[in-house]
Amino acid sequence: MPYEPFFNAHHSPVGAFASFTLGYKGASGGLGIELGKPADENMYIGLETEEGGTYQAFPFFGDTEEDLARFAVGNDQTEGDQSLITHFSDEEIQRDFNAGTDTWRAGDLEFTIYSPVREIPDPEGGNVQNLKDTIVPAVFVEVTIDNRNHAKKRKAFFGYQGEDPYSGMRRITSSGIQGIGQGRRTAIVTNDAAAKAGLGFTIDKVLNVEHEFNLGFGLGLCGAIVIEAEANEKKTFQLAVCFYRDGYVTSGIDTTYYYTQYFSSIEEVAAYALDRFQPLIDHCRSGNQLVDGQKLTDEQRFMMAHSIKSYYGNTQFLENNGKPLWVVNEGEYRMMNTFDLTVDQLFYELKMSPWTVKNVLEQFTDRYSYKDTVFFPETKEQHPGGISFTHDMGVANVFSDPGRSAYEFAGIDDCFSFMTHEELVNWLCCASVYVSQTGDEAFAVKHKEVLVEAFNSMLHRDHPEPEQRNGLMGLDSSYTKGGAEITTYDSLDVSLGQARNNIYLAVKCWGVYAALEKLFQKLELSDLSREAGRQLRSCAETITSEMTEEGYIPAVITEGNTSRIIPAIEGLIFPYFTDCKEYLKEEGEFGTFIQALKKHIENVLKPGVCLFEDGGWKISSTSDNSWLSKIYLCQFIYREILEFPWGEQEKAADQAHVKWLTHPKLSYWSWSDQIIAGEISASRYYPRGVTSILWLLEK
Amino acid sequence: MPYEPFFNAHHSPVGAFASFTLGYKGASGGLGIELGKPADENMYIGLETEEGGTYQAFPFFGDTEEDLARFAVGNDQTEGDQSLITHFSDEEIQRDFNAGTDTWRAGDLEFTIYSPVREIPDPEGGNVQNLKDTIVPAVFVEVTIDNRNHAKKRKAFFGYQGEDPYSGMRRITSSGIQGIGQGRRTAIVTNDAAAKAGLGFTIDKVLNVEHEFNLGFGLGLCGAIVIEAEANEKKTFQLAVCFYRDGYVTSGIDTTYYYTQYFSSIEEVAAYALDRFQPLIDHCRSGNQLVDGQKLTDEQRFMMAHSIKSYYGNTQFLENNGKPLWVVNEGEYRMMNTFDLTVDQLFYELKMSPWTVKNVLEQFTDRYSYKDTVFFPETKEQHPGGISFTHDMGVANVFSDPGRSAYEFAGIDDCFSFMTHEELVNWLCCASVYVSQTGDEAFAVKHKEVLVEAFNSMLHRDHPEPEQRNGLMGLDSSYTKGGAEITTYDSLDVSLGQARNNIYLAVKCWGVYAALEKLFQKLELSDLSREAGRQLRSCAETITSEMTEEGYIPAVITEGNTSRIIPAIEGLIFPYFTDCKEYLKEEGEFGTFIQALKKHIENVLKPGVCLFEDGGWKISSTSDNSWLSKIYLCQFIYREILEFPWGEQEKAADQAHVKWLTHPKLSYWSWSDQIIAGEISASRYYPRGVTSILWLLEK
Repeated sequence: MPYEPFFNAHHSPVGAFASFTLGYKGASGGLGIELGKPADENMYIGLETEEGGTYQAFPFFGDTEEDLARFAVGNDQTEGDQSLITHFSDEEIQRDFNAGTDTWRAGDLEFTIYSPVREIPDPEGGNVQNLKDTIVPAVFVEVTIDNRNHAKKRKAFFGYQGEDPYSGMRRITSSGIQGIGQGRRTAIVTNDAAAKAGLGFTIDKVLNVEHEFNLGFGLGLCGAIVIEAEANEKKTFQLAVCFYRDGYVTSGIDTTYYYTQYFSSIEEVAAYALDRFQPLIDHCRSGNQLVDGQKLTDEQRFMMAHSIKSYYGNTQFLENNGKPLWVVNEGEYRMMNTFDLTVDQLFYELKMSPWTVKNVLEQFTDRYSYKDTVFFPETKEQHPGGISFTHDMGVANVFSDPGRSAYEFAGIDDCFSFMTHEELVNWLCCASVYVSQTGDEAFAVKHKEVLVEAFNSMLHRDHPEPEQRNGLMGLDSSYTKGGAEITTYDSLDVSLGQARNNIYLAVKCWGVYAALEKLFQKLELSDLSREAGRQLRSCAETITSEMTEEGYIPAVITEGNTSRIIPAIEGLIFPYFTDCKEYLKEEGEFGTFIQALKKHIENVLKPGVCLFEDGGWKISSTSDNSWLSKIYLCQFIYREILEFPWGEQEKAADQAHVKWLTHPKLSYWSWSDQIIAGEISASRYYPRGVTSILWLLEK
Repeated sequence: MPYEPFFNAHHSPVGAFASFTLGYKGASGGLGIELGKPADENMYIGLETEEGGTYQAFPFFGDTEEDLARFAVGNDQTEGDQSLITHFSDEEIQRDFNAGTDTWRAGDLEFTIYSPVREIPDPEGGNVQNLKDTIVPAVFVEVTIDNRNHAKKRKAFFGYQGEDPYSGMRRITSSGIQGIGQGRRTAIVTNDAAAKAGLGFTIDKVLNVEHEFNLGFGLGLCGAIVIEAEANEKKTFQLAVCFYRDGYVTSGIDTTYYYTQYFSSIEEVAAYALDRFQPLIDHCRSGNQLVDGQKLTDEQRFMMAHSIKSYYGNTQFLENNGKPLWVVNEGEYRMMNTFDLTVDQLFYELKMSPWTVKNVLEQFTDRYSYKDTVFFPETKEQHPGGISFTHDMGVANVFSDPGRSAYEFAGIDDCFSFMTHEELVNWLCCASVYVSQTGDEAFAVKHKEVLVEAFNSMLHRDHPEPEQRNGLMGLDSSYTKGGAEITTYDSLDVSLGQARNNIYLAVKCWGVYAALEKLFQKLELSDLSREAGRQLRSCAETITSEMTEEGYIPAVITEGNTSRIIPAIEGLIFPYFTDCKEYLKEEGEFGTFIQALKKHIENVLKPGVCLFEDGGWKISSTSDNSWLSKIYLCQFIYREILEFPWGEQEKAADQAHVKWLTHPKLSYWSWSDQIIAGEISASRYYPRGVTSILWLLEK
């Protein structure tokens, strides 16, 4: 492994908004549901020493002293025996990190966490067994004690100290299942008859129990499953790490987890997960193949696996009135279905669950659209605007009111302002890519009216006078109340933050117009198709004409800006996925445009411009805040669409990117997006990195 | 008020295991559900200054800087304007603290929190309207702006920053109701049409909003309701503070909150609370009469009100399979229906909700009893034992397995050991008092077998040979696995901690035998009645004969102990409530015994023995750990049963006790039980102090 092993990673079921996060030292992982960060629980995973009676454990716990202070009785029960368990040394510990498996080894102990990487069948019309297998809210663990060279029995243990504020730890003993859990929400279980589950104030109390009765000590803050290998035996134990939340989980819209249709309690989840253990872990293991056996570098494999795991931890598959409702939460921010993330996760979801793309698009058309007027910054006079879509659908289990996001704030021109044009374009990007990639033309027909409205809305945001349109966004939404719209790059400087006349957004518009030209043709709306074509060409011309003498296109055109940005090329992804690849060719109709962008990217990908000192990509020359999800996307475009070779400089970039993610302190945050000069800084614990899936399509 | 106002107090609905805790400075109160401590939320309550544009607020919030750090964008939205709101000075702030109302005043602002102190109708056969009024999970607030001397409009605000880890803050706007809340769990609402509810990253953003649209800012961490009084107007606004939790809330037994039968969401709670506002707050106000208008000192009134509020915050009225299930949680420990608390809360519950006593007793007989054998400490040889009851029924929403508590641990002889004899006696105390006070003889007939079993179990724990019985506990339970039983005074030294031969438990046994002698007679079990009578007399003789030359009875008899304890007199409470008052008379059959206890208590209530330097009661001469709930109980016995006058020394004691509870640092913990040398130390946030209700019965 080309990096230190002690970084956190999600290990998550599909759609349970849950994660068994592990890897960072201390009480930094654990079993979290609906959190924007790791659960910060002590995880106890260890093995008896050869001498016996003492234990060595992975360093995934701190101490429980503070928790025990309230039982201020100076009693043996409340004093942990710290000498009983020591940590394995860093040198002894090995980690084999993959998309579907994460294996840790130290001494004679090995454990593997299995998490699903699998297609999600469309719940409306899918196979129920397959759906249950896919969404059972559990991940899986195998613990192996290699006691072959040892003539005495040895114990191992796997447990945790739950941090849910509302419910206590408990021991689970029901119909062949043993385990420990917290309330009705989380549990670790096994059906191995030889295992013993128990609770104690401290973990040593579970290991060193004189009277078996005391394993049921209800006040115990720590729980563990204790297993044992016979002398000279190598034995593997199977455990499931289960999650559950019943009842309504969101406000604004009353939803339940889709899995509650099939599982009425965590005990039922446990029983199913253990019953189907072997096929389920086989499937997880096969998930590794998505990443392995491809022509990827080690760095790419690592980042793809890491980002996939993080994505699943943010997925939330809900049900409302019998209908499926798909949500991807936005990492530490927990905004729901943030549209400018959806458009990046699109490529992964089209591969694994195209129905979720449709589901989210229709949530936007049904509830999360609005209509505005627009204005030029100089005059503030209102002109006709049109439809757009909200930035998100709410935050942290709170669906926002129809037609509004949790995020957007009126009267400002920076972070938290409206993303009206950005999200309008995103709906069109997602819809056109979805139709093109799935062939679901019925969707286009069903939403023809929205497609037309959205196109007209784009035109209105270009210029009120058709003859003055240049293909770019020129007017801001009235919802900004005299402020200015921003883009998804909300925390960057104006180079990527300002929407109007932004080259990033402009190339995306170009991509949309290309798709619409074709789609309207299919829908037999030839006037609109022609108009889209005009916009397409006008847009390319405008952008091309802004090429400076230094050989770059400024981030914001016509406004004196001189920033240079990598995402100038981002919009090229959409023609690639909407059957418009001919437009991406240097020798094609848009050759001059493509050549300009090639020249631009060649010139900006230089040290001191859009490369950090460590070789990592810097998305804007004027900001130290770089976003990995977008880097992954632009890397694909750079290599696959613009056909640049992948040389030493590019490999060094990926080494830098891996280093960012495995930062000795900040890798607590699992996969994270916003990296300021090499330090994970925001958009942490994030789902968006699955743009890396595009790498699999490279020739 | 004879004390500083800045102490936390619960303000709680009945049976919702919820509290709007307020009073301690900083983010130390707030809206908590199912917690063992205050929610630690910022509470925002303030008024616009006369100058206008700036505000003064009560000091119940800290800052939100840490929460905002993740939005690391250096944006106006994430930077609070700290200068906008200043705290009222301590000198300006007045508090009027009562059982049903808690009023705060500063400048021209006044607010009152109303919380119920009312009888709970038996859900099986009660009036539904009355039941809904009683258990609606809300408390009530009136905010008054006295703007009569001011010629400009003035705003006030009432809001909070929720700390639930799983869900976001939200604005509630539905059918005439406006409010702010967190997820589906907590909310503050009003139906005043002139009020405005909003969210912001910081509270100043809600007050100083340029565009009304932004009041719906979903990412806002703080929410408030903003109200306004016209020039020269005094205006009162009404708000409800609501709690809700749906679905199953406990494991082990699947239960829901009883109120979910009547209210399907927090919005329905809000609508009901506001609709019934006036009668509900009138009822809360009438709750003050329970404490007022009695011949109580200020100190007594304070402690009674405080303890009642704390009790309700721990109550949890559940439903299981259509049947009511009553739980009182144990403060910071959250153990459920801890039996040695039930026996103290008995007197309050018999007054307010006798059906809950029956309900809990039957939970013990149905699920939480067990049968053991017993042994003498010297030989460990097992002898027949019998039935007893568990210490508790679980912890923090986790019901323990049938026949076992969360607390009890085998193989030890101190804290966490078994309380077999203590809880056996407690079942008999509760059952006999319940039957005697309610006249529910059907209960006694229904549970005749348990009564007989329990009596026999007591006999077996005295001595295997009937002729050697002395009325005291002489053998320990086999469940201790060779350890020793303890009493409810688990964290004290042996003087109160050891059960066997303990004088505290012995006098309680005497009380039980007195009750059983009578009850068996009624049940026409005259042999048993006679046997109970023999035990009764034998017990009194044993105790009386242990009087030392110094005029006290040692805490543990026959074992060389010389501790002196106040709870030697505790057991006298039971004859008082089981129609055996004649046994408590100095001139009666047990005159010698009563005189011995009078002499004992007179001699121990001396400075340096069982009085602290500050005059407070010290329940054991050999421990600094004193328990207020038990002090309250013994004060009643001292005055009402033993007929000692209440002089200056006793008044000084209560002044000391108030000082303990209003400790400048430790009063964060609301009403608390275990006080070590004047410092709240354990059993914090506790329900047990309602033993104070006994004071109302004093002549």
